[in-house]
Amino acid sequence: MHVLIIGGGGMIGRKLSDRLARDGRIKGREIARLTLHDVVEPAAPAGAPFATDTAVSDLSVPGAAEALVADRPDVVIHLASVVSGEAEADFEKGYRVNLDGTRQLFEAIRAIDGYTPRLVFTSSVAAFGGPYPEDAIPDDFILTPFTSYGTQKAICELLLTDYTRRGAFDGIGIRLPTICVRPGKPNKAASGFFSGIIREPLIGMEALLPVSDDLRHFHASPRSAVGFLVHAAGIDGEAVGPRRNLTMPGVSVTVGEQIEALRRVAGEKAVSLIRREPDPTVLSIIGSWPRDFATRRADALGFTAEADFDAIIRAHIEDELGGTIAV
Amino acid sequence: MHVLIIGGGGMIGRKLSDRLARDGRIKGREIARLTLHDVVEPAAPAGAPFATDTAVSDLSVPGAAEALVADRPDVVIHLASVVSGEAEADFEKGYRVNLDGTRQLFEAIRAIDGYTPRLVFTSSVAAFGGPYPEDAIPDDFILTPFTSYGTQKAICELLLTDYTRRGAFDGIGIRLPTICVRPGKPNKAASGFFSGIIREPLIGMEALLPVSDDLRHFHASPRSAVGFLVHAAGIDGEAVGPRRNLTMPGVSVTVGEQIEALRRVAGEKAVSLIRREPDPTVLSIIGSWPRDFATRRADALGFTAEADFDAIIRAHIEDELGGTIAV
Repeated sequence: MHVLIIGGGGMIGRKLSDRLARDGRIKGREIARLTLHDVVEPAAPAGAPFATDTAVSDLSVPGAAEALVADRPDVVIHLASVVSGEAEADFEKGYRVNLDGTRQLFEAIRAIDGYTPRLVFTSSVAAFGGPYPEDAIPDDFILTPFTSYGTQKAICELLLTDYTRRGAFDGIGIRLPTICVRPGKPNKAASGFFSGIIREPLIGMEALLPVSDDLRHFHASPRSAVGFLVHAAGIDGEAVGPRRNLTMPGVSVTVGEQIEALRRVAGEKAVSLIRREPDPTVLSIIGSWPRDFATRRADALGFTAEADFDAIIRAHIEDELGGTIAV
Repeated sequence: MHVLIIGGGGMIGRKLSDRLARDGRIKGREIARLTLHDVVEPAAPAGAPFATDTAVSDLSVPGAAEALVADRPDVVIHLASVVSGEAEADFEKGYRVNLDGTRQLFEAIRAIDGYTPRLVFTSSVAAFGGPYPEDAIPDDFILTPFTSYGTQKAICELLLTDYTRRGAFDGIGIRLPTICVRPGKPNKAASGFFSGIIREPLIGMEALLPVSDDLRHFHASPRSAVGFLVHAAGIDGEAVGPRRNLTMPGVSVTVGEQIEALRRVAGEKAVSLIRREPDPTVLSIIGSWPRDFATRRADALGFTAEADFDAIIRAHIEDELGGTIAV
């Protein structure tokens, strides 16, 4: 089986190719070849039992999508995206990459006679917008995004369903929760603190908390995100039915509950490194984000996330810190 | 005020321009000029108190949208669309006209500095797909269309909201119920019988009924559809809020209730002209259509439809038959 990962050079893409290199197969089917694509040369996973090649291009440039699927990969995992902040700052670029690039990919696949690969598309809970129901957001809740990024994701979900219905490919769209704990350095994303207040204290660094402890949000670990992608790559399309986009499971916790989990897993000293510095700008952005989802369809289809936030922290310690805490 | 109607040559467009010619204004603002656009020369309304000009072009051809909005019409009403059956039969044409044409219109408006017209977009309840809730479909129900036409409408709704949020224009999308009683000759649309079983008997002609009497569907008259458009053209955008697309009110009735209404309004002889001829193909298409909507948002914003199906039949008799029944 030939797997193509578009946008494979990012954090999730690297973890996904490492996982594929370890597993060597998806749902029992052996991987014979992996193609990693990105706008800059992506790193091939170490020790893979299959051949890995790389492709460098801008998916939104005419002809790029056609070149990527010319070899008819059996599974296409589409991770490439301009992030939320950039899609908001640069309207044209967001639509060109996130919408037109994806549509060109869908068209390139549709154009090949008798070729209907599994296509996994990464959408986001940013495709939702308030007002939300009092309880967890159900699977049949309307998508009314508050950002251009969310709009582009919601549009691609609709295209994915229609192209699948028309037989162009066998598409599965997965709406990712906020990824936490995101590895790496602190960044300026409004959501950065959700990871920062865990990641930084675990390496003995101070972390700023710009919102109040009662703010609730919905998280899944990078490890779970990779698990969602692998499961989506191998799932039976018939079982999914005509609604091809699924909100992925996650852990709904308040910031206070995140901190309590940190206390349980890493102790009081780690917690003492969190410094509260309220930032009304951050709160005004985050305050409109969804807080909880009831992911019955994804659960029934076998997608699984961590059971609680403690497990999310432990996964980070195992996957990023070699199993040990510095504080 | 300058009003532009794109796709103004169709049934709804003609009725809308007649209504504007009678009223001479929208929500108190005098109409100084009306531009009617379509792919073939549209007919100007008779006796209008304002100047009417016409434009003929294919909205999906590059440059067509720019030409239409170059004069900065204050209100743009976008009715142009490839119909459901054609969008299903011709995948490329449906996306080119219904999606790309609309996006080019949105882009043409966005490109003009300091120009933020009211834009009214006609979406459709075809943007929904099952499974539906047991009760009426609420305003926050997910859009999972079963057709390419419905997909294109749902995508344009998302674009309309984002372009409005970004200040490109002040958009309102209205999801039209099935229009009934549709004037004119019988056609081959799967939904044609909903109108046919009323329209044909009222002129003494036989009509075929391909489904069972208990099939429920959601209707609004052409007169109501025109009312929705006029109301949307004049409504306060602030009052609508960030969710810019609204399911329009209508009348939810079974085919049996339609026939009872015909009996009350036109008598037994009209009803006797309905011939039952079950057609499994029609039923398989119509069976997946939505049956009822709870249109609380549109109701609260002052959109109104007929109170019952009797009123829909009476509106047809007044507007199409000069107030008299032939049977």
